[in-house]
Amino acid sequence: MGNAAVKNADETWVYAFGGGTSDGDASMRNLLGGKGANLAEMAKLGLPVPPGFTISTAVCVAYYDTGRVYPATLDAQVSDALAALEGKTGKGFGDPENPLLVSVRSGARASMPGMMDTVLNLGLNEAVAAGLAGKAGDRFAYDSYRRFIQMYSNVVLGMGHDEFEHILDDYKEREGLDLDTELTADNWKQVIVRYKEAVQKELGRPFPEDPREQLWGAISAVFDSWMSDRAIIYRKLNDIPANWGTAVNVQSMVFGNLGDTSATGVAFTRDPSNGSPIFYGEYLINAQGEDVVAGIRTPAPISRERANTLGSSDAPLEEAMPPVYKQLVDVANTLERHYKDMQDIEFTVEDGTLYMLQTRNGKRTAAAAVKIAVDMVREGLITEEEALLRIDPTALDQLLHPRIPSDDENKKAGNAAYDVAFKGLPASPGAAVGRVVFDSEEAFALAAKGEDVILVRVETSPDDIKGMHAARAIVTARGGMTSHAAVVARGMGRPCVCGASDLRINTAKGEFTARGRTFKKGDMITVDGVNGRVIAGAVSLINPDLSGDFGEFMGWADKRRTLKVRANAETPLDTRTAVEFGAEGVGLCRTEHMFFDEERIPAVRTMILSNDETGRREALAKLLPMQRSDFEEIFRILGDRPATIRLLDPPLHEFLPHTDEDIAGVAKASGLSAEELRRRAADLHESNPMLGHRGCRLGITYPEIYEMQARAIFEAAVNIFKEGKLKPVPEVMIPLVATHRELDILKKLVDETAQKVFAETGVTLDYMVGTMIELPRAALAAGEIAQAAEFFSFGTNDLTQTTLGISRDDAGKFLPIYSEKGIYEKDPFVTLDQEGVGELVKIAAERGRKTRPDIKLGICGEHGGDPASVEFCHRAGLDYVSCSPYRVPIARLAAAQAAIRGAKK
Amino acid sequence: MGNAAVKNADETWVYAFGGGTSDGDASMRNLLGGKGANLAEMAKLGLPVPPGFTISTAVCVAYYDTGRVYPATLDAQVSDALAALEGKTGKGFGDPENPLLVSVRSGARASMPGMMDTVLNLGLNEAVAAGLAGKAGDRFAYDSYRRFIQMYSNVVLGMGHDEFEHILDDYKEREGLDLDTELTADNWKQVIVRYKEAVQKELGRPFPEDPREQLWGAISAVFDSWMSDRAIIYRKLNDIPANWGTAVNVQSMVFGNLGDTSATGVAFTRDPSNGSPIFYGEYLINAQGEDVVAGIRTPAPISRERANTLGSSDAPLEEAMPPVYKQLVDVANTLERHYKDMQDIEFTVEDGTLYMLQTRNGKRTAAAAVKIAVDMVREGLITEEEALLRIDPTALDQLLHPRIPSDDENKKAGNAAYDVAFKGLPASPGAAVGRVVFDSEEAFALAAKGEDVILVRVETSPDDIKGMHAARAIVTARGGMTSHAAVVARGMGRPCVCGASDLRINTAKGEFTARGRTFKKGDMITVDGVNGRVIAGAVSLINPDLSGDFGEFMGWADKRRTLKVRANAETPLDTRTAVEFGAEGVGLCRTEHMFFDEERIPAVRTMILSNDETGRREALAKLLPMQRSDFEEIFRILGDRPATIRLLDPPLHEFLPHTDEDIAGVAKASGLSAEELRRRAADLHESNPMLGHRGCRLGITYPEIYEMQARAIFEAAVNIFKEGKLKPVPEVMIPLVATHRELDILKKLVDETAQKVFAETGVTLDYMVGTMIELPRAALAAGEIAQAAEFFSFGTNDLTQTTLGISRDDAGKFLPIYSEKGIYEKDPFVTLDQEGVGELVKIAAERGRKTRPDIKLGICGEHGGDPASVEFCHRAGLDYVSCSPYRVPIARLAAAQAAIRGAKK
Repeated sequence: MGNAAVKNADETWVYAFGGGTSDGDASMRNLLGGKGANLAEMAKLGLPVPPGFTISTAVCVAYYDTGRVYPATLDAQVSDALAALEGKTGKGFGDPENPLLVSVRSGARASMPGMMDTVLNLGLNEAVAAGLAGKAGDRFAYDSYRRFIQMYSNVVLGMGHDEFEHILDDYKEREGLDLDTELTADNWKQVIVRYKEAVQKELGRPFPEDPREQLWGAISAVFDSWMSDRAIIYRKLNDIPANWGTAVNVQSMVFGNLGDTSATGVAFTRDPSNGSPIFYGEYLINAQGEDVVAGIRTPAPISRERANTLGSSDAPLEEAMPPVYKQLVDVANTLERHYKDMQDIEFTVEDGTLYMLQTRNGKRTAAAAVKIAVDMVREGLITEEEALLRIDPTALDQLLHPRIPSDDENKKAGNAAYDVAFKGLPASPGAAVGRVVFDSEEAFALAAKGEDVILVRVETSPDDIKGMHAARAIVTARGGMTSHAAVVARGMGRPCVCGASDLRINTAKGEFTARGRTFKKGDMITVDGVNGRVIAGAVSLINPDLSGDFGEFMGWADKRRTLKVRANAETPLDTRTAVEFGAEGVGLCRTEHMFFDEERIPAVRTMILSNDETGRREALAKLLPMQRSDFEEIFRILGDRPATIRLLDPPLHEFLPHTDEDIAGVAKASGLSAEELRRRAADLHESNPMLGHRGCRLGITYPEIYEMQARAIFEAAVNIFKEGKLKPVPEVMIPLVATHRELDILKKLVDETAQKVFAETGVTLDYMVGTMIELPRAALAAGEIAQAAEFFSFGTNDLTQTTLGISRDDAGKFLPIYSEKGIYEKDPFVTLDQEGVGELVKIAAERGRKTRPDIKLGICGEHGGDPASVEFCHRAGLDYVSCSPYRVPIARLAAAQAAIRGAKK
Repeated sequence: MGNAAVKNADETWVYAFGGGTSDGDASMRNLLGGKGANLAEMAKLGLPVPPGFTISTAVCVAYYDTGRVYPATLDAQVSDALAALEGKTGKGFGDPENPLLVSVRSGARASMPGMMDTVLNLGLNEAVAAGLAGKAGDRFAYDSYRRFIQMYSNVVLGMGHDEFEHILDDYKEREGLDLDTELTADNWKQVIVRYKEAVQKELGRPFPEDPREQLWGAISAVFDSWMSDRAIIYRKLNDIPANWGTAVNVQSMVFGNLGDTSATGVAFTRDPSNGSPIFYGEYLINAQGEDVVAGIRTPAPISRERANTLGSSDAPLEEAMPPVYKQLVDVANTLERHYKDMQDIEFTVEDGTLYMLQTRNGKRTAAAAVKIAVDMVREGLITEEEALLRIDPTALDQLLHPRIPSDDENKKAGNAAYDVAFKGLPASPGAAVGRVVFDSEEAFALAAKGEDVILVRVETSPDDIKGMHAARAIVTARGGMTSHAAVVARGMGRPCVCGASDLRINTAKGEFTARGRTFKKGDMITVDGVNGRVIAGAVSLINPDLSGDFGEFMGWADKRRTLKVRANAETPLDTRTAVEFGAEGVGLCRTEHMFFDEERIPAVRTMILSNDETGRREALAKLLPMQRSDFEEIFRILGDRPATIRLLDPPLHEFLPHTDEDIAGVAKASGLSAEELRRRAADLHESNPMLGHRGCRLGITYPEIYEMQARAIFEAAVNIFKEGKLKPVPEVMIPLVATHRELDILKKLVDETAQKVFAETGVTLDYMVGTMIELPRAALAAGEIAQAAEFFSFGTNDLTQTTLGISRDDAGKFLPIYSEKGIYEKDPFVTLDQEGVGELVKIAAERGRKTRPDIKLGICGEHGGDPASVEFCHRAGLDYVSCSPYRVPIARLAAAQAAIRGAKK
């Protein structure tokens, strides 16, 4: 678009709205931004919108494409628009006799805090203020003028807000004045002189008197704010591309501060915190918009119903200005019916006349979103499909965990505000309360005694799995949204706050400090994984409700989706959670997680440290009954649902001790010297373990390991079958296959083991053998691999690592810079890289199906719970996705959305 | 074939030859093995071949497919063949009156030491020996019988050879006998009794009397020997698939030991050591074949010419048996003309009658191979193309390095036999003489003083590069053919023996021991990289001759090939070597190798340890003139040949010190504390450096590094151009690109830098910007990447690592087992995996060309010097291959062979 702008000198850059005509409408959101498009739409609907014009996002794009130069024709178009605005309002910009004042606001495609917000009353200078004084009263005129100087200096000229506050406080003190309302026009004039001196002193130039200079200053400030650090960070966190750009809205001012017949306010057409269908909002008499936001005066509730809910004694707008209130309710209803969604509106009443300044789809909690969508279907406003498409699947996550009461709920319950100790990244949703523990072993031990603990670590490693599972929540000082702690916590459904940079842990002392406070081991804290907060003390949490509206809503989703949804689970708890959340089977049961268990790891280590097959077989014989009972429990929970069980995958060195202390412990237990143990560990050390001796390479070199695991699976399945009620469906999965020859060898081993178990027990069960497709070579050789494989499960985590050549563990050093530069639009470990990894998935699916038309195709790994990736899987024609239990509802909804969108095309 | 054998009961398993008919011929080598096919062919040509039959390789395959069970119809077919043989010879197998004795020999498709070789005189037992005594003399009969028992017991029954030697020595001593020839028939009878007792005692069963049992014992011994450890190892080393199988040849005996009118011998139709067209061979009067091999008696030269060459006083066959000699020369000429290649023949003279026992294409040194091929073209026997196809390209490597004189040459020069201290893998060809050094720094220092040194290490790492380059040869105790030492040594053209398991290095004492001997630092040794030998003392080496026959031969190759050949080179020495060996440019100049130089690494480290861009830029400014002068030198050597220069690739931590000593040194030099340095190194540490912060990711995150390197390249090119004679052609290559966006950003940086340099200097030169294709994603996205890339260089080393998910550094733990099981037929790091990696190369080539039809496509990395991979590149339509300088002639020949074979199709 940028280039087109440069090339096409005839392009329209400016779009007028209000006063009878609108160049734009709501469909032009990409060009006009959300605010601009909706102002135009409201004007078209005949609602009372003060006229103005929008400078399009294309200008912003062109501005950055050309090194911050405006398109040549922009200046003329703005002048024309301004002239037209003067015509519509019958006022003159900079005309002291009848001055046109405007507001200037940013407005991007997506709502974006972090950018310049608003400048009001623009167009005032000494002469205009004097003129305005004659028409609207001098106190109003000079109060407005000083507000303008203050706001413009801060927002456009970049001066501190405090400076002006100091000047005002200083002045009031010297004059013995207390409240702003006590200041007269003359007082304000004196304050204005001081304000202007401050600007001159700090910037070395006077405050601009020329309204056009003011206007262009404000326009540039909006465009420049698009690349402010805060805006860049916000975009990164919210996946907003930099090349969307922002628009600028210039609108004639209306005044809520012309006396007691004027007012300003904001409202939601329904309650955004829980979705209740009440008119929700607040307003201030005799005030300008920013007063509501600034919080200097406490706004009053808008309706009687809301006032009652809050127990407020202030008069609601409903009673203070009944005709205006009635008109506002009509407008709100019109807008909701028109947009078919809950609206967030801003309005101003100027001397008894209502003006609409903004409408947009209102932000809401996930709970509210579901309730509103379900209600609107009942009200006949939208269809079930529209309701399904309206909810961001990832937002559901909030509904599946206990949560912290909202500030409102908290206040209503009569509690003090939350005492936030520190913040970090909201790495895994939900909330939990527990005592601080710094050590995984200790977390496990205390949890075993029934204590609720929160594991607080600098960062986590596979050694911490047991402690993480035992803890109610995890907090780390280091690591991003895809760090070990974050990924594992999401997988386990544990709330997690990670990368908390204020957190300093002193394990030796058994304490941590954050923002100057010290917390000791055993102190009670509350972790809010949704908002990335850690709160001192215990907060009473609210439990999720999976039935009611949520249940109905998910039912609609299940009716529409064609993709099945399974869960990645290996513990009975996870498996049970998965089934509760609607999983249709287990798509990935990682048997190595069972190996880390305290009771088992000695046998695992003995096996690894054995010099020969005999030694390994002895150790494996000890593991067999334990693995068998794991599988029995999982089969029992799953019933007739299938379970894909992956044979041992990680390199063996992961099971060996790393710290001196652990080595000493294992040495003692194993009878080997610490030195010998260290030597063996060094022998097993790998330069690139991700590409090392792991996956089926273990099965090829130590077939006895896979043989034991296959035996455990089949014996467990037979045992459960013999109990008489269930018929387990084991799917044995071979990891890290690159060639069909690997699978041929290992499938033979699995089949032979199955036949032995069936012969020994006299029970024969159906089962499948298949493979992970997680290496590019496997995707390419899928046609040959499918000769032996009855299913493919795309291991997109490893497939992403190998296809892109990026180690997930090491990507932190450059992937953030890559996102910043737009090299990967989204983190490829969160959202599937469709161009690269996706092509391999498609190639493998096609080749696999060509060899074996009924081959079952699924995806496991983090991508299985990412809506964009789920949509890809739907389009690629896979049979199922598998994700962590807590993401199952997300995947169900995403799959439904994909089916609906697919059917539309 | 195995399955077919089981299914098809009518299959012919046994093929007769000789006595007027032959079921097979030379074209049936795959089925009959080399020996069997050639015996059949010779018989067809009417040459005197003792009749016999061949049990095909299909039997061997079936035998192993079914768990060592023979095809059902085999027994009958062998019986029929034996009956036919009795008919042809007029003798009876096991018939004391007129006994048929046979030899049993293995014979695979490729000559394969490691398998069972030969059993002679089979069919003898007490009765048959007695009968034979009546016909051919009793001494002959019992001498033959005891030889048979000895050979059969050893080869078939698995008894030690020494045991029988002890019995015989013991007997001779007791009887006061000195030479075997002094033993009478009765003596032999007594020895035979003792032999049989020894067999009974050791095996618990008698020596088999039944000739058919003997025969089946020998047949099974041949088939079983196919899976002996030695055979398996040999196959692995020589890339022979296990499913080829071996054949068994059963042939009626002729006797060279029937007195002074009998003889046996071996001959080559030309000199296999240098290719001279003389009749070359040796023989023994009154002897059996194994006597020539056993070395108990010294054979005499076959021809007068050869006797003169050797200065032998023994009568040559030419004079001892003139008619037989004449007949033999005729046979030899017939065979050479028939096979159009130098033949290696075995013959026996039985009582004045010549019999041919074997012919095959003779093994020869690379020098002989070239001379014979060139001579045969001159003689009109073969065409240039046939000559080119006849030479194994890898064998050329031997011709490019100084070499150890052959044992013959050494003897002729009057020197003592070589004193081999120990052996290892022949990891990099050539030979070198020098003093033992254990430390890379010391190797560098001594070399700088003009000393020839041999670097002896347990294994090598990137820290040793400087020392390896300074050394004349490298020897390691650990590591295989693709270990760091091996790969780097081949790249540098340094002879290397690696994985020498007898070598025990004691660095502290400054010595090593091997096979019980101790060598000290400074001791002189000679390294023979062709044969994997390390010889005590200094051997006088022979220098290569690249002109003459070799030059003519390579000229033929250059005429035919369409693929260009470049070299991977970064030092002036390597570049010069590459040009001498015929490289048409540099395909990969790794700029990081220049960073390891002692003078530079401090600046490199300062750069890495800088906290900000300013610090990095300061350090880079110091590196700029050094890099520039490197490039100047390379451009000067290359002239108008193009040079592809790869910008910095390895992760930065590779440049930081690792040992405590080095850390202390760097700390001192850099002004940082050792602890700080260690912390920074830990910060840079990566779990999987292969997939980490390297390649263009460095250029994206630290653009100043690539900017400096681009500047150095362009300034160097301009400087050389200004000298007035040459016009350098720089091709700037961006490594590890995965998306077109990376290349877009970095190409812009390179182009801007070029424009700056051109503007500053007033000289504008042509250059190209391109990329490595070394990640699967890059191959898939090649169409988009080609929009910015003017060339692709396939980095097949990394592409193999990522496509197969195998870390080359860690593959040693499982890749050998993978080869054993046939999962990868060849080491995918040596020979390109065509199914997987190859498909990505083809996809990228196709997509790249679609976007940019004239895009230049090449391959760099080890595969560029592997003939099979070169052939693939030819078929894939690439423009060039690039390999290490010493492999350039190999690639030239391989490219010619690919072109010739391609044209034939």
